[in-house]
Amino acid sequence: MSDYDVLCIGNAIVDIIARCDEAFLVENDIIRGAMNLIDEERATFLYDNMGPAVETSGGSAGNTAAGVAGFGGSAAFFGKVCNDQLGDIYRHDIRAQGVAFDTRPLENRPPTARSMIFVTPDGERSMNTYLGACVELGPEDVEEEKVKAAKISYFEGYLWDPPRAKEAIRKTAEIAHAAGQQMAMTLSDSFCVDRYRGEFLDLMRSGTVDIVFANEHELLSLYQTSSFDEGLAAIRADCRLGVVTRSEHGSIVATREETVAVNPVQVDDIVDSTGAGDLYAAGFLFGLAHGRSLTDCGRLGSLAASKVIEQIGPRLQTSLKEAAVQAGLL
Amino acid sequence: MSDYDVLCIGNAIVDIIARCDEAFLVENDIIRGAMNLIDEERATFLYDNMGPAVETSGGSAGNTAAGVAGFGGSAAFFGKVCNDQLGDIYRHDIRAQGVAFDTRPLENRPPTARSMIFVTPDGERSMNTYLGACVELGPEDVEEEKVKAAKISYFEGYLWDPPRAKEAIRKTAEIAHAAGQQMAMTLSDSFCVDRYRGEFLDLMRSGTVDIVFANEHELLSLYQTSSFDEGLAAIRADCRLGVVTRSEHGSIVATREETVAVNPVQVDDIVDSTGAGDLYAAGFLFGLAHGRSLTDCGRLGSLAASKVIEQIGPRLQTSLKEAAVQAGLL
Repeated sequence: MSDYDVLCIGNAIVDIIARCDEAFLVENDIIRGAMNLIDEERATFLYDNMGPAVETSGGSAGNTAAGVAGFGGSAAFFGKVCNDQLGDIYRHDIRAQGVAFDTRPLENRPPTARSMIFVTPDGERSMNTYLGACVELGPEDVEEEKVKAAKISYFEGYLWDPPRAKEAIRKTAEIAHAAGQQMAMTLSDSFCVDRYRGEFLDLMRSGTVDIVFANEHELLSLYQTSSFDEGLAAIRADCRLGVVTRSEHGSIVATREETVAVNPVQVDDIVDSTGAGDLYAAGFLFGLAHGRSLTDCGRLGSLAASKVIEQIGPRLQTSLKEAAVQAGLL
Repeated sequence: MSDYDVLCIGNAIVDIIARCDEAFLVENDIIRGAMNLIDEERATFLYDNMGPAVETSGGSAGNTAAGVAGFGGSAAFFGKVCNDQLGDIYRHDIRAQGVAFDTRPLENRPPTARSMIFVTPDGERSMNTYLGACVELGPEDVEEEKVKAAKISYFEGYLWDPPRAKEAIRKTAEIAHAAGQQMAMTLSDSFCVDRYRGEFLDLMRSGTVDIVFANEHELLSLYQTSSFDEGLAAIRADCRLGVVTRSEHGSIVATREETVAVNPVQVDDIVDSTGAGDLYAAGFLFGLAHGRSLTDCGRLGSLAASKVIEQIGPRLQTSLKEAAVQAGLL
């Protein structure tokens, strides 16, 4: 028996979330709906121009780990913070959710990563991430025992941005596969896909990754196509299990043998889309680790995504487990 | 013409907010609905036992300043933070709301104050405040020009907890009254009233304070009575203007000449009561500074309070000005 349903690896980021109007994004050259990487100088500039904000732990894979634990699953996380106040907050929140998190923090600089997230009236989030301490994550942070003990090790494509995290992922994949476990990744962001298309395809085609999560934009970016069907056929050929989320149109799960279409969970009012993909992955991976059908995995993912976009921030303030019980999924 | 509608003075606190069940409060000796003062050791203990949280700038008078600015009013704030990450967050949020905030931060220790706020399923908040840098606020932090320029200087009774803030308040009152301006305070918390009953009554009876905000519990605590009518008669005698909030029963405004009862604004679901009194004071003081009737002041207060308890945290993520326009109050 494995100790962990899912081990998640990603950039450990505190989110700083504020509302803005559409014009603000244009005036400040922020790519709408994307993850914009920024340096310290631009972080200062944007923060000076940002409205009043709230802070919450975030980071794509960290959100997924928190979500798996929120369903009652067992989760672990690797990610680098600094030993500062934001790092304390990050460590507290993920551990308080029940996630095993023991990555050694940096002692001095750079400070814990933060992402300034601007939420427009339609609920879309545009992220501006200063990677800070995340640039120091490397293969020395891979805790071998946790990798061996996790049914699925899941990482974010964003990890190709810091310099040495990819080495940590390759090391993790070797350990996981040698232990008979699975590797999963999310493509993260269409611009991230554009930066690392060749490497991501290689991860898939070499079998380093077994399961791939993508939204529609990321899928089309990966295969440089405008045809969803073409993208779906390609991801089906390139990995064992492809999971494509399509916002209000639900999601599609593709294996070489079958295609499963999953309906979305209706949401009346999208407050903030931050974390939607991360929580979908959480529900899906929790289901997969518990031997559920692909349809149920997708439904658990859709449920978690629907809950997180009804609130501000990517960490749920309500119980996913209770929500799943109420929906008849647990 | 005054430069500021309201100058607010208070403990500059970052709120750390998490949900908990009723049993947690009992098990951890947290007085329900109150502001519990804690030291660094207990702060560490409680944080270790707290669930995943969100962070937002808070502090009673700071919330009021942000609320006044949210109505489109002009506000200033005095409060002490440390030059650390939480201090940066505090400074950013209150300035980003449009509040003038220039109190010199501490360079090293103690760190910026934080309050761990536990919200039970009924929406009640129980606060656990580590005062940190706030203990250093003193008369040297009173910016004379801002006091002279503010129609109303408003402070929180909580300022009697740190050692020298009361000196800052007495200095402020002298400057404000010499400039023909008004002084207002909130009694803050029934236990706070119990700690400083004599001094608070002296502030009122000596005319150091002209306007007093209290909720029902605080009023009864101040006059050590179980009779609301007796409390109301006493506050009417002790200050020029007494404003008593009664949660779902609305509020009562009492002067020596008249009593105005203000209906509450109905709220379907109380998410988190944090900041309700602070935002009521914001609406009331904004109205008062703009020459509105006492009824309108109370209605502006009730509107602001109703908005803040529908969300997590005491700083509004929606526009109070727009809400007031929609309600026909602006």
